Amino acid sequence: MSKQYNVGVVGATGVVGSEIIKILESRQFPVGQLRLFASERSLGHSVEFHGQHIDVEVLAQDQLTDLDILLFSAGSDISKEYCPIAAEKGITCIDNTSYFRMDPSVPLVVPEVNASALANHQHIIANPNCSTAQLMVVLKPIMDAVGLDRVVVSTYQSVSGAGSAAIKELEHQSRANLSGHELKPSVFQAPIAFNLIPQIDVFTDNGYTKEEMKMINETKKILGDDSIQMTATAVRVPVFVSHSESVNIQTKSPISADEVRSLLNDAPGVCVMDNPELSIYPTPRDSAGSDDVSVGRIRSDVSHPCGIDLWCVGDNLRKGAALNAVQIAEALIAG
Amino acid sequence: MSKQYNVGVVGATGVVGSEIIKILESRQFPVGQLRLFASERSLGHSVEFHGQHIDVEVLAQDQLTDLDILLFSAGSDISKEYCPIAAEKGITCIDNTSYFRMDPSVPLVVPEVNASALANHQHIIANPNCSTAQLMVVLKPIMDAVGLDRVVVSTYQSVSGAGSAAIKELEHQSRANLSGHELKPSVFQAPIAFNLIPQIDVFTDNGYTKEEMKMINETKKILGDDSIQMTATAVRVPVFVSHSESVNIQTKSPISADEVRSLLNDAPGVCVMDNPELSIYPTPRDSAGSDDVSVGRIRSDVSHPCGIDLWCVGDNLRKGAALNAVQIAEALIAG
Repeated sequence: MSKQYNVGVVGATGVVGSEIIKILESRQFPVGQLRLFASERSLGHSVEFHGQHIDVEVLAQDQLTDLDILLFSAGSDISKEYCPIAAEKGITCIDNTSYFRMDPSVPLVVPEVNASALANHQHIIANPNCSTAQLMVVLKPIMDAVGLDRVVVSTYQSVSGAGSAAIKELEHQSRANLSGHELKPSVFQAPIAFNLIPQIDVFTDNGYTKEEMKMINETKKILGDDSIQMTATAVRVPVFVSHSESVNIQTKSPISADEVRSLLNDAPGVCVMDNPELSIYPTPRDSAGSDDVSVGRIRSDVSHPCGIDLWCVGDNLRKGAALNAVQIAEALIAG
Repeated sequence: MSKQYNVGVVGATGVVGSEIIKILESRQFPVGQLRLFASERSLGHSVEFHGQHIDVEVLAQDQLTDLDILLFSAGSDISKEYCPIAAEKGITCIDNTSYFRMDPSVPLVVPEVNASALANHQHIIANPNCSTAQLMVVLKPIMDAVGLDRVVVSTYQSVSGAGSAAIKELEHQSRANLSGHELKPSVFQAPIAFNLIPQIDVFTDNGYTKEEMKMINETKKILGDDSIQMTATAVRVPVFVSHSESVNIQTKSPISADEVRSLLNDAPGVCVMDNPELSIYPTPRDSAGSDDVSVGRIRSDVSHPCGIDLWCVGDNLRKGAALNAVQIAEALIAG
């Protein structure tokens, strides 16, 4: 019988935590015991896993025993406090928050792209930001073929990236608007129903938001090349699940749209959906629930001899979060 | 008493036509007689203008008498057929469709930007595409100050750009979705409620859509500079009114974000809404109903020494269509 692992999910009742549990089950991760951790608010809840009801435990230092892997998705403060404690006990922490991502001693991993960074980890591994993860599987094959000079990204990010209260806010606000009423925003800075908000996370001193700077910095770390020039504008859109990105890429040497299509067709974790004649391209609603990142609208940029434009869509709860975290765990146990 | 003009609106019952009538009234355009033209479907309808009910007439060649100005917004086929006939009779046609825009003998005008192009017109003047018009008032002051090298735009375009049936489609589909039902798309290629569609207008041979190529070609014509390199990705979003654009600009010589802010503060038709500390930036819902194009998120692009990123939002029915058309008429009678 193959080895089994005791796995804990921290933030088990959140949007990403719930998705992690589903993915551990559907991908048949060799779980010995599954432990579910959350805040006191979730006490009394239980979650089904392979037909078994598992009670939620309140996260506390002395609970962290008999565990091999802990998947964190409960906010930076929790990760900051508990990852080092767990790592100290030899538990491998896969952290979905931004807290450790830029720490030089912590690998930041998209398994299809830089699984080798997992070697010599110190028991804390960071999962990239949702909008970054999906872009990496698209950029990597292009980088390997012709090099990347500069990338200009505009995002169209769904509300589920901001958690379950954000999903409810879009739903309730939309319903109110359609009945001629207004509901004050509480999760977001402005109304999100039938609107756009060009702010995700807080602003930094250079006028970018943290979300935008995360994408820029994490891309360089994951692709292992600080010379890639990148700018990003991150926008929240009234979509429930899946982040979309309009991506303009300047490569180091020219590449045709057909060559990009062919590279991406062969790339792991990528699904090319690109047939303008039949109006085939990815949309967030089609992409929700998919493991693959979908890419379409691939074309030679008329404004630059080494330019490529494309449109990529990924389920932010899956490749952007839960799936990538479980894939990291899979790479660890395979490695 | 100052001169008055007999004005006709073709497509008077459509989304843009209705807006034109409101704007002629609110801006006190010196209308002698107002004539409203539409298809047979609209026969029997009447529209209020300065307290008077005006009956809709069916457009026909022999109706085009005693008119000084005709504002067209009823589709390219109607403009193609009737603009030359009206122009021949000496009626000045301001055409909101794409049909004549790239015709070298037809001025394509955003009055704040290139009113001088109106000189020597041949009685047909083209109004630019909605997403282009709003961008021009933003790019022009920057071009005049430091020159434009390359512009990369990703749009977030509201459904009202596709007419009143599209507005209803978003409304009905959203309502259905919130009740757990699906409604098949009829105006759009895919569901638009809680979704994004990276296609506006049909595809061209180079993989761009017509909407994207319009923006690229019209920008060069309006700014009078074919050397400006530009690429665009046009995306339909579930917003009712106002188009938003994430714009990355490479200027010929460096310019700071503060200088751009100051230029745009002084620019006609532009309203700078840009205070990250207070989460102040334009959103489509705030912008709907405004004449000004709102700009925020102005920042130095970390990826390029001559790069500027910004976010611009304009009411596509006003600056993007009806307002700009009426402003052209105003420039003509003033000129």
